[in-house]
Amino acid sequence: MVAPLKIGLAGLGTVGASVVRLLDQERSVLAARCGRGIEVVAVTARSRKKSRGIDLSRFRWVADARSLATDREIDVFVELMGGEDDPAKSAVAAALAAGKSVVTANKALLARHGVALAALAEKNRVALNFEAAVGGAIPIVKTLREGLAGNSFVRIYGILNGTCNYILTRMERERLSFAACLKDAQRLGYAEADPAFDVEGHDTAQKLAILASLAFGAKVNPEAIYVEGISSIAPEDLDAAADLGYRVKLLGVAVKTKKGIEQRVHPTMVPRETAIAQVMGVTNAVTIDAEGINPITLVGPGAGGAATASAVVSDLGDIARGVRTAPFGWPTARLSTSRKAPMQRHEGGYYIRLAAVDRPGTFAAIAKHLAAQKISLESIVQHRRDDRPHGGEDPRSPAKPAPVILITYATTEDAVRRALKAIQKQGVIAGKPQLIRIEKN
Amino acid sequence: MVAPLKIGLAGLGTVGASVVRLLDQERSVLAARCGRGIEVVAVTARSRKKSRGIDLSRFRWVADARSLATDREIDVFVELMGGEDDPAKSAVAAALAAGKSVVTANKALLARHGVALAALAEKNRVALNFEAAVGGAIPIVKTLREGLAGNSFVRIYGILNGTCNYILTRMERERLSFAACLKDAQRLGYAEADPAFDVEGHDTAQKLAILASLAFGAKVNPEAIYVEGISSIAPEDLDAAADLGYRVKLLGVAVKTKKGIEQRVHPTMVPRETAIAQVMGVTNAVTIDAEGINPITLVGPGAGGAATASAVVSDLGDIARGVRTAPFGWPTARLSTSRKAPMQRHEGGYYIRLAAVDRPGTFAAIAKHLAAQKISLESIVQHRRDDRPHGGEDPRSPAKPAPVILITYATTEDAVRRALKAIQKQGVIAGKPQLIRIEKN
Repeated sequence: MVAPLKIGLAGLGTVGASVVRLLDQERSVLAARCGRGIEVVAVTARSRKKSRGIDLSRFRWVADARSLATDREIDVFVELMGGEDDPAKSAVAAALAAGKSVVTANKALLARHGVALAALAEKNRVALNFEAAVGGAIPIVKTLREGLAGNSFVRIYGILNGTCNYILTRMERERLSFAACLKDAQRLGYAEADPAFDVEGHDTAQKLAILASLAFGAKVNPEAIYVEGISSIAPEDLDAAADLGYRVKLLGVAVKTKKGIEQRVHPTMVPRETAIAQVMGVTNAVTIDAEGINPITLVGPGAGGAATASAVVSDLGDIARGVRTAPFGWPTARLSTSRKAPMQRHEGGYYIRLAAVDRPGTFAAIAKHLAAQKISLESIVQHRRDDRPHGGEDPRSPAKPAPVILITYATTEDAVRRALKAIQKQGVIAGKPQLIRIEKN
Repeated sequence: MVAPLKIGLAGLGTVGASVVRLLDQERSVLAARCGRGIEVVAVTARSRKKSRGIDLSRFRWVADARSLATDREIDVFVELMGGEDDPAKSAVAAALAAGKSVVTANKALLARHGVALAALAEKNRVALNFEAAVGGAIPIVKTLREGLAGNSFVRIYGILNGTCNYILTRMERERLSFAACLKDAQRLGYAEADPAFDVEGHDTAQKLAILASLAFGAKVNPEAIYVEGISSIAPEDLDAAADLGYRVKLLGVAVKTKKGIEQRVHPTMVPRETAIAQVMGVTNAVTIDAEGINPITLVGPGAGGAATASAVVSDLGDIARGVRTAPFGWPTARLSTSRKAPMQRHEGGYYIRLAAVDRPGTFAAIAKHLAAQKISLESIVQHRRDDRPHGGEDPRSPAKPAPVILITYATTEDAVRRALKAIQKQGVIAGKPQLIRIEKN
């Protein structure tokens, strides 16, 4: 019998406690599957006294993460503290340098220092596994790194933040405002007291940076990502999307283009019949477009103690079975420094919602500026205004702006921005235009 | 530089040719990802002369599969001939016995001889990989074997046959009969000239047997599967499903019950909002219910040369990287001989469509026999008959049977069968009752 794999666990929050519980529950199954047991031997966390609903007395308590990381007894350091810098960073680096494999759920750490840590893991011939950092229990890291290792990827996109998808789902189903849904999400514990990190797209961006690196063999580069959150989305956008056969999702999208790797996070119109459009509530999903085959979509729980623990334990299982894969699927020396495809050069269709000033010549002005940028329109929808059956340009009504919705054929970000600037300048629209990019499958 | 992994490839149909092409296309990427090249060195197939659109002259031609399987030069034998018996079986066994790893797409072989071959692989310390045998490019084998290795599974179910899903999709969208859609599927090459293997559920059953083994650590046992195909499904069933918030899919379902592992293949009513219900056309999908976490669903192309080749090459990538996992995720000695949960004891909701004879007392008789079996009804729908606004039991109309649709609460297969038998015996319904099992999420 091979000796058990000995774990040092740093961080005993919801996820840490769930990992301990899952390892207990699945002890014999894991031992059978992996050919050896997996045992927590030592732990550390901010507070030793906090009640966590698990018996910690059987584990050796180590004073700090860094000491645990280099502890003689452990084979693997499991980092569940979070945070892109110390103590997580130095503890993980210390563990790798000491020849310990590392399992982490820390997306911020990987987005920031992933390449350096991967190089360190490689140098010391140990594993650095992070299935839990993206998409919770969805085995997306393994799928990109191993399951589709024989494919060239064209595009990868996903719903990577459950809070945003929960808010958009409720906004759509109940015609509620963003603010009302956010409040509810906070009350239910789906959103943090400071929700900006989630709703402004930064959480999605960190995860996207990791996925893009895995998919395209490029160095993780969160700075290259264009980021836009969901706070500007209004119920009328969701209604219009439904009318036009779309649904709005906050997507992280990475695409291989001739100009480099385009990485962007923004509210996106996706065709309603796609797998990703069907994903509602806090659920996450990732779609992978590989050359020559139809898209593959993975859907599942993206957060929560049990889902995250599932990913951590499968990473431990790989280490127990003796598997060591290059952290980003390629030797770090082979990871390319990806060119950032500038957002202005993004090509695609656009949804534009304008509040058109109600006077003769408004439509002509809008049409002229779009034409000047060579933007063709796929649909124009003039929504009913107030309670009158059809808004139109009724000369008897007060000059209240009427919502106009435009769907463009493929154009560039630059062209759209220019056209809208010109339209705004001419004073034919009120307020800021709403702009949502369309992602076709 | 490590020497390349040398492949002997038996079977040069659509999949074999796609594997050769993919290995060519991704040569440098694979070498970088795996740390060594992957090279086909020798091949065999039924006909040497057939044109396949690939250059075979660079490969050594070996007279037969068995000789290739034990060829000195090769490290891995790739079996793409198909068929559950010889020559595939003896060639795979010979390769394993000779210490060669094997990659196969042969679901029939694995369903029939999977355990014996896995034991042989284990004994000779080589890999037996078969990602391509189930779900095409969807990495479902790896996900069950490794990606969710830390989880206990409760249930696994999926759309595993593209032909059936294509037929059901067209029947639903165009209100066509099964026969008309089958004909079209044959014309388009989605269905074989002899379609029984697909439409009667046998293809799904072979794949389910493999998935059930992976999920529950049990010996593959296709005999334990209850199998029912889609040929009895009528457009009115699909309409009724839509009215009631369901969609009909041919599912393979494996569930852990107190009575053993229940394995069944049959048309199934799935709630319309589930991920699996959204899967249309030839696409495949598998949903995994693991203890303590929300379901995970994998969706993607389930057949075709490129999709299958993608799975074969990822299996080769694992071998090139030196990974050897127990073929069914557990040492074969630990695979349990699963008790077969008898179908009569299946518990769940049922959709029942009856052609009720139009005379007083019909409903009373139906209700009485259901009550006698303690079956409670969730919904009763009496569809409009002919062109009259409401069928009802109009005394002026001829005594033409009226369709009645019943949705039961959870009951047992046995109770439903008994009740229907009694109802039929009493002569209050015409023809055979339609029965579709409901799978809740």
